[in-house]
Amino acid sequence: MISAAVLAAPNQRIEVRSFDRPRLEPGAVLLRTLGSEVCGTDTHLTKGQLAGVPYPIIPGHISVGVIDEVGSGDPVLDVDGKPLVAGQIVTFLDVYGNCGRCWYCTVGHATTRCPSRKVYGVTLSADEGLLGGWAEYIYLRPGVHIVPLPAELDWRAFLSAGCGMPTALHAVTLAEVDFGDTVVVQGAGPVGLSAAVLAQLRGAGQVIVVGGPEVRLAAAEKFGADTTIDIGATNKAERLSMVRELTNGRGADVTIEATGVPSAVPEGMRLTRDAGRYVVVGQYTNAGEASFNPHLDLNQKHLTIHGCWGSDVGHVYRSVHVMAKYAKQFPWTELISGEYDLAHAQDALDDVAAQRVVKALIVP
Amino acid sequence: MISAAVLAAPNQRIEVRSFDRPRLEPGAVLLRTLGSEVCGTDTHLTKGQLAGVPYPIIPGHISVGVIDEVGSGDPVLDVDGKPLVAGQIVTFLDVYGNCGRCWYCTVGHATTRCPSRKVYGVTLSADEGLLGGWAEYIYLRPGVHIVPLPAELDWRAFLSAGCGMPTALHAVTLAEVDFGDTVVVQGAGPVGLSAAVLAQLRGAGQVIVVGGPEVRLAAAEKFGADTTIDIGATNKAERLSMVRELTNGRGADVTIEATGVPSAVPEGMRLTRDAGRYVVVGQYTNAGEASFNPHLDLNQKHLTIHGCWGSDVGHVYRSVHVMAKYAKQFPWTELISGEYDLAHAQDALDDVAAQRVVKALIVP
Amino acid sequence: MISAAVLAAPNQRIEVRSFDRPRLEPGAVLLRTLGSEVCGTDTHLTKGQLAGVPYPIIPGHISVGVIDEVGSGDPVLDVDGKPLVAGQIVTFLDVYGNCGRCWYCTVGHATTRCPSRKVYGVTLSADEGLLGGWAEYIYLRPGVHIVPLPAELDWRAFLSAGCGMPTALHAVTLAEVDFGDTVVVQGAGPVGLSAAVLAQLRGAGQVIVVGGPEVRLAAAEKFGADTTIDIGATNKAERLSMVRELTNGRGADVTIEATGVPSAVPEGMRLTRDAGRYVVVGQYTNAGEASFNPHLDLNQKHLTIHGCWGSDVGHVYRSVHVMAKYAKQFPWTELISGEYDLAHAQDALDDVAAQRVVKALIVP
Amino acid sequence: MISAAVLAAPNQRIEVRSFDRPRLEPGAVLLRTLGSEVCGTDTHLTKGQLAGVPYPIIPGHISVGVIDEVGSGDPVLDVDGKPLVAGQIVTFLDVYGNCGRCWYCTVGHATTRCPSRKVYGVTLSADEGLLGGWAEYIYLRPGVHIVPLPAELDWRAFLSAGCGMPTALHAVTLAEVDFGDTVVVQGAGPVGLSAAVLAQLRGAGQVIVVGGPEVRLAAAEKFGADTTIDIGATNKAERLSMVRELTNGRGADVTIEATGVPSAVPEGMRLTRDAGRYVVVGQYTNAGEASFNPHLDLNQKHLTIHGCWGSDVGHVYRSVHVMAKYAKQFPWTELISGEYDLAHAQDALDDVAAQRVVKALIVP
Repeated sequence: MISAAVLAAPNQRIEVRSFDRPRLEPGAVLLRTLGSEVCGTDTHLTKGQLAGVPYPIIPGHISVGVIDEVGSGDPVLDVDGKPLVAGQIVTFLDVYGNCGRCWYCTVGHATTRCPSRKVYGVTLSADEGLLGGWAEYIYLRPGVHIVPLPAELDWRAFLSAGCGMPTALHAVTLAEVDFGDTVVVQGAGPVGLSAAVLAQLRGAGQVIVVGGPEVRLAAAEKFGADTTIDIGATNKAERLSMVRELTNGRGADVTIEATGVPSAVPEGMRLTRDAGRYVVVGQYTNAGEASFNPHLDLNQKHLTIHGCWGSDVGHVYRSVHVMAKYAKQFPWTELISGEYDLAHAQDALDDVAAQRVVKALIVP
Repeated sequence: MISAAVLAAPNQRIEVRSFDRPRLEPGAVLLRTLGSEVCGTDTHLTKGQLAGVPYPIIPGHISVGVIDEVGSGDPVLDVDGKPLVAGQIVTFLDVYGNCGRCWYCTVGHATTRCPSRKVYGVTLSADEGLLGGWAEYIYLRPGVHIVPLPAELDWRAFLSAGCGMPTALHAVTLAEVDFGDTVVVQGAGPVGLSAAVLAQLRGAGQVIVVGGPEVRLAAAEKFGADTTIDIGATNKAERLSMVRELTNGRGADVTIEATGVPSAVPEGMRLTRDAGRYVVVGQYTNAGEASFNPHLDLNQKHLTIHGCWGSDVGHVYRSVHVMAKYAKQFPWTELISGEYDLAHAQDALDDVAAQRVVKALIVP
Repeated sequence: MISAAVLAAPNQRIEVRSFDRPRLEPGAVLLRTLGSEVCGTDTHLTKGQLAGVPYPIIPGHISVGVIDEVGSGDPVLDVDGKPLVAGQIVTFLDVYGNCGRCWYCTVGHATTRCPSRKVYGVTLSADEGLLGGWAEYIYLRPGVHIVPLPAELDWRAFLSAGCGMPTALHAVTLAEVDFGDTVVVQGAGPVGLSAAVLAQLRGAGQVIVVGGPEVRLAAAEKFGADTTIDIGATNKAERLSMVRELTNGRGADVTIEATGVPSAVPEGMRLTRDAGRYVVVGQYTNAGEASFNPHLDLNQKHLTIHGCWGSDVGHVYRSVHVMAKYAKQFPWTELISGEYDLAHAQDALDDVAAQRVVKALIVP
Repeated sequence: MISAAVLAAPNQRIEVRSFDRPRLEPGAVLLRTLGSEVCGTDTHLTKGQLAGVPYPIIPGHISVGVIDEVGSGDPVLDVDGKPLVAGQIVTFLDVYGNCGRCWYCTVGHATTRCPSRKVYGVTLSADEGLLGGWAEYIYLRPGVHIVPLPAELDWRAFLSAGCGMPTALHAVTLAEVDFGDTVVVQGAGPVGLSAAVLAQLRGAGQVIVVGGPEVRLAAAEKFGADTTIDIGATNKAERLSMVRELTNGRGADVTIEATGVPSAVPEGMRLTRDAGRYVVVGQYTNAGEASFNPHLDLNQKHLTIHGCWGSDVGHVYRSVHVMAKYAKQFPWTELISGEYDLAHAQDALDDVAAQRVVKALIVP
């Protein structure tokens, strides 16, 4: 029997259930889980804040495992076209089932907006199988995009920022950071910290992280932020003045929002210089409205704003290769503040919700 | 003596004053004015709604004239590098004095945000000379960028959309219209109508103009809009529903805002499809705030928004060449609803403010 | 029984064979063919100049038909997500079988380089069924991307440029034509003529077509080319001098190569201005090498060059919508110089090879 | 009296001449030289291989100095708009005199192709003053763009790659390196080594340097190259095979050419994967032609190629800020193999020509 942590319904506590070992279809892969992340989305799931979730679910969307079994038939290929074999350590894109045929998949080239996409650990039900990462084994259906970890990338290192890394990689790519740019990151959670690292791997000249609490700002500094601004100890006017002072009065060339707080968005527009770029990647749930001045904050400012949703195969593939290459430079694993087995998955959720940890892992 | 229409101070009526014929510095050019436009900015100027205006001013920023005299010394060159000679019909970039040395001019490549720039007819005082278009002659200081009109482009045709054409050209360029895209234009004034034309000259598959009043919507249809939506006869929900119906439920690929009304901005975000592009080019004065939902309208939508400010030499140069090439296809001059001499410049302003005309010209 | 024109092997004449009416798999669609194009690739196929062609084949890659039957099971959807029904007039992307899983399909976002792709009429064998357009019926396998023609687009008009239109649309998109640009098109076949039209639908200020013979240059002028240069009546130095004279000495802002002749490529680099863009889209078969000067023609010139291969769903979808919108402006059907039934398909090939026609259609 | 190294004519030895201390115009700045680089261009200058050089010249285009005197009148501002004062350590853009008015400066936004530009140490004569870096003092004319060095950037560190850094920064920016990309750099001189570093500061997943001799490849490895390929110990087929093996058979995502050898260009096209990007930045003098296959190497490959010429203010400004931020990570000064005073400037040239050094500095 296989154990998995199950969220039966919103506002219930995580429970551990037993599952039969699945029989593999052709093209499927069974992973023995090494670890799976706990992320902000998981705390939203426990509160029922996402639409279309088929409870009960096994949470856990970004995970790493060892290939335990490969389905019969044609070889199952990784993204590079190489056959996958038992014993390999791999991760996979949590999004599954892009149709490849709809307007967004084909004409629009906006694959993260395909209506058919399902997400492991979020929109796939535990009634259908081991379709989430908080389990001893994960069943990868035919068509799931699988990315092996290079030897030089420890699996814990890869999980240290969890989905925050591909999410931030998408955002920083859209931001078109130019060499020497000043980048302000709003938010110091896994997405924000990943963005602060990736900004440096775009050649930013200066990285400023606005956030809290203290433990996260300390992590930001360890990961190369030149300046941190404590959101709890400053007001908007002070933050604007600090950023302007650090940028010859102009404001940030690029700002990345990773907070989830609506009022952060107009603030971020103001922190950015005229003709700068602003990427909003933290507004993953509906937390209400925000007000701004279209003349001052947008039109006269000649500002570019990108909303940035989801990740595709490329973002995961590129995350793996970036983290492998720069593993010595950035102490990824120090972001992991706690590891929890399945029986303590609820504690992990509680610690994340209370921001007591930077990143929590489930290690079954 | 040379006559010019002067706005002595906000909330005063236009008066006609006499000026001496100026003596030309080396590098300067004197134009005998053929025509100059009346634009929305001029109505804002009469109300004192722009900062930094050195009243008294001679209004009129986009103008056409015949070269009457060229300053001594080295030849004065047009943008193509050819010497300018008396008798040529030319226009010029109203923006003058970009420093070419500040961060925005050099590193930022955002020349419309150079703090040194002055604008003919707006931020240059009548006390300094004939520095606006509503005058029998216009004094082009050394360094003003001069663009001859090709023979096939009638000067009235060029002025028919006035500054609306280079403004829209900048916006539509930023919008990255793809072949076959549905483009929604919010606003049916000179900027909106120009955007509707230019969207077609980007290969849009469908152009929808949202605006009013009826006379302007009729012009939009004559200039190729596939659908017009009367802003006065519909509410937001109806407009959203109409646009969705015309786009297989997705919304516009590209939306261009050219209204000046803050609430148009969140509406425009919603009229645009997921992963679409939205350019805000109509918020030229501070008319207050607007409220939107960062999760629904921006982040989940994976939307790109560009604020678009001002025009540079290229936008005027390109406007001239586009209008010349497609002069037969688009009946530009039909946009001109009225021509006024200097003595009736106040009437022109009144007619524009009341939206009684699409475009009014001052013909001294 | 269903008739189809079959090319049994290279260097053989087209013959007409009979096929059984196929039984449809779920997801498949059977088209009754209205017309199919003859293109340069077809002449290469008859000479055996393409690798990997599984003769015998039914040629014809871009085609239009009426839906005769839709396979059982779930509805078959068009690109816009609407169920396809019998009686609709549709076209389809000739490329079929993109895997959606390889590195090029996922990470590289370069779907035209997916190694799994098959092409109707080129790399699908007649032994497998009605998989080419020169046939009374075409069998669209499950997964073929189907695009209905809008009511305002006559099917002959859509076929008038054949695959030349999506091919040129891809190229002109890559070329990033700016408003008012001078665009030189090398070649006056269906790709070149389509590029000349699409350049105008990008707002080009001037279009110059270099090619021949006379009948094609006349078509170019009818479709809006400002200048044509007869390749047979000029030498390279003269052509360079003519283009420079038309561009204030600078050269073309954008050049599009659609000739298939290797030496056209270095010539095209020289016809383009410093810091311009050059798209090479006509070198579809290996016709040998060409020599250029990396310092003068590329590096000092600050030139951008794009090789442009193949079309994807979006290019066909966008072609359909562009052609529909501008059907009145461009007399597409005048490009069709001849229609041939299946029994005369060989004549069509001969006429195309001899450049006696601009575009030939097979109308079964 | 002020000493300067002068190249009186091609194929002559460098001599030291004396100059009067210049009197400063308003807006000018006099630098006391700390150091100036010796670059490949200087060896070309001694052989007379560049057109338009007004011998005698004082070589030395990228230099650093201490402000000794600022001209009277309005304050002279740095690129950030701050007044420059005596005692500051600054560098400056060697290119001077962009007109700001020609088509390339205004419409084309291709400032490195402005015909008016002059280059310190290259196209400004010693007869006009101290207009090159190999001198005790450098006279910066009004309008020269001046960039202060941040305190954390040692002046030797900034000069360690000389003009190679802004040149490579321009090239790597054009290359649009994506996170995790494999970047091949052809050439291991200052431009190539700078490109190898900057590729990492774009988040490259793997950097491969092809070049020689051994001392430069060792430097490449010290600066983070994952693999070096000795150009002298391999042939083209071997190099292609090595790069393919390191890239799952695909080839490099991005290749940067920095060799000056024409045959490197077709090789670089082949080292790059389908749909990849290739930047040619090393062909700074005319060394003859190269031959390639337009079908295989460009069109079918769907390859993008950028020729990249010159640097502008932004490239120098960004170089300064990137080098300052990552000064601890990259041991820039180890690139400097030799420092020479003015009397030994000829030795510096000889050592550079013989590739005995990675970078040589003139320290007056």
